[in-house]
Amino acid sequence: MRPPMKPLKALDDALAELLAHATPLPGTDTVTTFDADGRVLAQDCVSALQVPPQDNSSMDGYAVRCADVAAAGVVLPVSQRIPAGSAGYPLQPGTAARIFTGAPVPAGADAILMQEDCEALAAAAAGGLGAVCINAVPQAGQWIRSAGEDITRGGVVLSAGTRLTPAELGLAASIGQHQLQVARRPRVALFSTGDELVMPGEVPPEQMRPGAIYNSNRFFLRAMLLRLGCEVTDFGIVPDRRDATIAALRDASAAHDLILTSGGVSVGEEDHIKPAVESLGTLDLWQIAMKPGKPFAYGQIPREGGAAHFMGLPGNPVSSFLTFALLVRPFVLRLQGVLDVASQSVAMRADFSWPKADKRREFLRVRHNAAGGLDLFNNQSSGVLTSAAWGDGVVDNPAGQTIAACDTVRYIAFSELLA
Amino acid sequence: MRPPMKPLKALDDALAELLAHATPLPGTDTVTTFDADGRVLAQDCVSALQVPPQDNSSMDGYAVRCADVAAAGVVLPVSQRIPAGSAGYPLQPGTAARIFTGAPVPAGADAILMQEDCEALAAAAAGGLGAVCINAVPQAGQWIRSAGEDITRGGVVLSAGTRLTPAELGLAASIGQHQLQVARRPRVALFSTGDELVMPGEVPPEQMRPGAIYNSNRFFLRAMLLRLGCEVTDFGIVPDRRDATIAALRDASAAHDLILTSGGVSVGEEDHIKPAVESLGTLDLWQIAMKPGKPFAYGQIPREGGAAHFMGLPGNPVSSFLTFALLVRPFVLRLQGVLDVASQSVAMRADFSWPKADKRREFLRVRHNAAGGLDLFNNQSSGVLTSAAWGDGVVDNPAGQTIAACDTVRYIAFSELLA
Repeated sequence: MRPPMKPLKALDDALAELLAHATPLPGTDTVTTFDADGRVLAQDCVSALQVPPQDNSSMDGYAVRCADVAAAGVVLPVSQRIPAGSAGYPLQPGTAARIFTGAPVPAGADAILMQEDCEALAAAAAGGLGAVCINAVPQAGQWIRSAGEDITRGGVVLSAGTRLTPAELGLAASIGQHQLQVARRPRVALFSTGDELVMPGEVPPEQMRPGAIYNSNRFFLRAMLLRLGCEVTDFGIVPDRRDATIAALRDASAAHDLILTSGGVSVGEEDHIKPAVESLGTLDLWQIAMKPGKPFAYGQIPREGGAAHFMGLPGNPVSSFLTFALLVRPFVLRLQGVLDVASQSVAMRADFSWPKADKRREFLRVRHNAAGGLDLFNNQSSGVLTSAAWGDGVVDNPAGQTIAACDTVRYIAFSELLA
Repeated sequence: MRPPMKPLKALDDALAELLAHATPLPGTDTVTTFDADGRVLAQDCVSALQVPPQDNSSMDGYAVRCADVAAAGVVLPVSQRIPAGSAGYPLQPGTAARIFTGAPVPAGADAILMQEDCEALAAAAAGGLGAVCINAVPQAGQWIRSAGEDITRGGVVLSAGTRLTPAELGLAASIGQHQLQVARRPRVALFSTGDELVMPGEVPPEQMRPGAIYNSNRFFLRAMLLRLGCEVTDFGIVPDRRDATIAALRDASAAHDLILTSGGVSVGEEDHIKPAVESLGTLDLWQIAMKPGKPFAYGQIPREGGAAHFMGLPGNPVSSFLTFALLVRPFVLRLQGVLDVASQSVAMRADFSWPKADKRREFLRVRHNAAGGLDLFNNQSSGVLTSAAWGDGVVDNPAGQTIAACDTVRYIAFSELLA
């Protein structure tokens, strides 16, 4: 007999409950900025310099004192020429400086005139710089990029908890940071469960016994964990005996922050991982109102100085893939101190219909089409990874909702869920 | 005097021209499926098995022969019980088989009845299986997942040219593939140019001489290349002398598929990389109608058995970042045999206005806001990476186009451009 069905837990509630357990891990690593892609900043990145370092021109033209140009038509001698990269010297009153984009504004000048508003007059003999006729009245400050306009000295350019991507590495480098303090990598132990599982390479397809299937979850779970910056230890198939399972879990919990399994956690399933976890710590079995998905387990195994987290994912590949993306991914990011762990969805047009509403929130595998809408994969079974490989994302469809062609739906790209 | 301005080249034309040069690289690697994330399949992945391996039930219920259930209300003895994972035996005519989701359909049965459409009658004494009253007339084939419905034997589950992500690794594993043939990694030589560039860590911010700036482009270019599966050799700053530059480029071209530089390729810029490349091979300077962006160089340096590609990016960080994302990225993917190298854009609502149209196609750095629209970064200067770190993507705004608040714009997420 199955135990009585627990009420379904909303996905958002499940995520909030998990995140409440995801205390950021202690310890940081110092890495070179070159090697920090994908890591999470452990402290604010503060600028010791200002950008731009000094006031500079945002146009090719002439630097002047506004007081010298009371009306259009004024003619000023050109007293210096300041290309980008050079320094110039204080601007003599009653003169103009020829200046180029990016060049520092000379002391005393308070405006730049675009060269389109000026007329260069013939240079004087003997290599002089000539004169310029100013055909517009300048406003103080015009076409000047102020020192510190982009980055102020002492300003925080990147906050602790930022997950670093290539642009952030460049930004940190641009203020002279060659090393960064980042959260240490979460250590994750990966277990598989299921007597029917066979590892690819161990038995060729033509020799598979009836009922046997290849283990595919290990492959994508490991790859997704690595993308999130984790160190992964693969413990393989959970041992067949209860005492051996307990020993393996105890081992794993001592050296890992998270133990992750897939399969074996549905209500009523025959499995020894559940009693084994319970004998060492705690385990809650959840029924999550999502499809694919639903069974999910969260527990803790105490160890010296704290506890290792335990998460059990459903065994069906697409269920395992999506519960990882929607629950484990934000958890693992939060362990590293990331504050904003939500995946961004965008509104898109459904070029399909979905006439059967489900009582659970559904994540339908879809793909962009050339007309700018979304096509649905023809087989939404949770057993077949083809839908996840074919698709480039999922429609996040609320419980009880049907979809008609041309409806606007919420779309989450896999590139968001896998980044 | 500057040379006369070349006409601007449309971004799409520039990309098409580059891709015409991007012949896929010869050579493949054999990698374990575990280690294939991010690589590109060099040959089709063909299934030696079918999924599901045999016809199976997609419901908990009863398997019957339709011929035995001409009308609702028929009572059939239950002749066997087939849980998932077991095999069953041929169905005796005039009987039903109790069957569970995923269990193989017994030979002879041609339909499944959901248990909701059936009434189990009391089991006979002595451990018999009892009988079932069938309250609906079945259609042949109903609730049966056919053998090979998901994956046919001999079918191509993943095509050559597919860039592998975690889902594809799982799918390949699910058909027993423990190794995959993938395109070899492109070898890329990275050079920096610019006398004003200082490496972070070499000079502290307070000791930077006027006009000096930290090299930031190297950091994000290297990280983006690594994300695309490249092997990167960092050659550092281009040497100061012409002959040394020629020697360095000749060295790099011998062992690399692509030489990438940033800076020093604008029309009129003082630089010795241009004449050095031209003395070894060919170089075209382009003015691309994009903002940020514009200057871009493409050339080739002949070597034994072919030529190394040369690409010169603009020196401004945001220009360099975006020309990489929009031109170099698709090129490098195509070198690995990826056919579909386009980045997906989606329609979104602008929660900002952009009243000044530009004659170039603009890529405005924006961020999702809580209201489901896009906010604009307040400084769209190409010199400041802050916009790329702050934003989560760009608006792809056509040339000559202004934007009013609430307009629909095309948005490309950085997660697409960095994947």
